[in-house]
Amino acid sequence: MIIIAEKLNGSIPSCGKAIAARDEEYIKDLAKRQADAGADFIDCCASVENGETETLKWMIDAIQSVTDCPISVDSPDVSAIIDAMQYCKKPGLFNSVSCEGNKLELAFPILAKPENKDWHVMALLCGDDGIPKTAAERIEIFEKIMAEAKRHGIEDKRIHIDPLVEMLCTKEDGEGVSLILEVMGHIKKTHPNVHISGAISNVSYNLPARRLINQAFTVLTINAGMTSVVLDPLSADLRGMILATEALLGNDDYCLEYIGAYREGLFA
Amino acid sequence: MIIIAEKLNGSIPSCGKAIAARDEEYIKDLAKRQADAGADFIDCCASVENGETETLKWMIDAIQSVTDCPISVDSPDVSAIIDAMQYCKKPGLFNSVSCEGNKLELAFPILAKPENKDWHVMALLCGDDGIPKTAAERIEIFEKIMAEAKRHGIEDKRIHIDPLVEMLCTKEDGEGVSLILEVMGHIKKTHPNVHISGAISNVSYNLPARRLINQAFTVLTINAGMTSVVLDPLSADLRGMILATEALLGNDDYCLEYIGAYREGLFA
Repeated sequence: MIIIAEKLNGSIPSCGKAIAARDEEYIKDLAKRQADAGADFIDCCASVENGETETLKWMIDAIQSVTDCPISVDSPDVSAIIDAMQYCKKPGLFNSVSCEGNKLELAFPILAKPENKDWHVMALLCGDDGIPKTAAERIEIFEKIMAEAKRHGIEDKRIHIDPLVEMLCTKEDGEGVSLILEVMGHIKKTHPNVHISGAISNVSYNLPARRLINQAFTVLTINAGMTSVVLDPLSADLRGMILATEALLGNDDYCLEYIGAYREGLFA
Repeated sequence: MIIIAEKLNGSIPSCGKAIAARDEEYIKDLAKRQADAGADFIDCCASVENGETETLKWMIDAIQSVTDCPISVDSPDVSAIIDAMQYCKKPGLFNSVSCEGNKLELAFPILAKPENKDWHVMALLCGDDGIPKTAAERIEIFEKIMAEAKRHGIEDKRIHIDPLVEMLCTKEDGEGVSLILEVMGHIKKTHPNVHISGAISNVSYNLPARRLINQAFTVLTINAGMTSVVLDPLSADLRGMILATEALLGNDDYCLEYIGAYREGLFA
C-alpha cells in the first residue's frame, strides 16, 4: 500500500495558518512525523490565492530539510505543479491531472520527458462538467486518461487513479459506495498495474465517529483493489487496519508484516 | 445483522469458574448487559464434563430471569440441546448441528415439529473427518445440510450457516481468508435467505491487536454476505464498524441507523 500523507495542506485551517505565518517548524515537524510513520509520499498543498509557486517552494524546501521522503506536489493548477517540480530533489507525485480543461495536454508532455520518468501522477476521474454522477461516465474518463498516457508513453505503474470518493451521508437510494467500488473493480480488471487511489476520509464527511466509517471504507476499497491511499499516517488504527486487511486478503504470509508493524509500535 | 452474543460460555475461563461456583449474579449480569447492547440471541454454552443438561437449565433460568432475549442453546451434544430446549420460554437458536455422526438425523426431526417452527438452527460446515480443508468440500457439506433441511421442511430463513472461521496466523500460501469468503459467496448466491454466520474472533487467534483483525474481517464478511454473527456485543467499536459497513454497502439510507446508534451511545 502506497501511503500519501495528507496533513501538509493549506486547506486544513491549522496548516493554512502556519503557511500564512511562514512557520517553518510546523511544516518540518509534520513532515518528519509523517515520514517516520511510514509515508511513501508527503503531500504538499499550498492552497493560497496568490504566490502559489513561491509558497510551494518554501514548503518543499522545509520538507526536504528534514526528510528525503518523496513529495506529492499538490495543486489544482497544473502549471504551478510543473513550476514546483524543479524544487524537488527526487522524483515525486504530480498531484493531480484530470480531463478538466487542458490539464492532460499540459502535464503529460512534461511527465513524458526522460528526466521525469520516475515521477508518478495522480489522475482524478472528472472533467469539464465536474464529478460525473455515474460509474460509466467515470470509467469513460479513465479510459480517456489511459489512452492519453499511452500516447505519451507514460507507463501504467506511474499512474494513480482517484475515482473521487464522495460523502456517504447524502446517499439515499441504497447505493452506498457501490459506484466507487465498481469503478475500482473496472480499473483493477482492465489495468492491473495502475494504482487505484483515493482520499478515503471524504466518505465520512458530516458523520459521527468518522474513524469507524473511514476504517470500514478502507477495508472495502482495499478489497476492491486500492493500492495507494491519501490518509493521515499518524492515525494508528487506520494504519493497523490496512495491514490487517492485507493479511486477511492473503498478501502477508504468516502475518509477518502485521506482527512486525505491531512490534515496531505502529499500532497498539 | 443478527447478533449472537458470545460471552456466556463455560470455555471462557472466568465464565467457567462462575458456572462451577453456580454464581447466578455473574450469569444474570452478562445476560442483561449483552441484551441491553442489542443481542438478538444470548449464547448459552455450559462446557462441562458432567451434568450438561442440568447446567444448561440453571444457566437458561438465570438468563430468563433478567431478559426475554431469545437464547442460543449451545452444545456439541445435540441431545443436550434437545433436552435443554424445553426450558426456553421462547424459541431460540439450536446451536449447533453439522454432518458429524447422526447430528442431523437427531436434530432436524425435532426442529421440524410444529411447536418448534420458530426455532433457528446453526449448522457448521464440517463432518466426520473434521473441518474440510477446501471450499469445495465445505460447499458439499452445505448442500447436504440444505437437502436434509428441505426434506424436513425446515425453511432457509431459519438456518444459520457457520462456514468455520479459522485462525489467520497459520496461513502461509497467500490464501488469507479467501476460502471463507468463497464459501459465503456460494451460499449467498444459491440460498439468499439462509443466514451466513460465523464466530469472527477465531480469525485473530494468536495475533496482536486482535480487535483490528476482527474488525477488518467483519467488514470483509459482511461484504461477502454475512447476516448473522457470533461476537461480543459489548465491543463498541465492532458494533459501530458493523453499522458503518451496512451504511457503506447501501443498507442504511442517509446513514440514519448509524447516526441513531451513535446518538444512543452504542459507540463513540
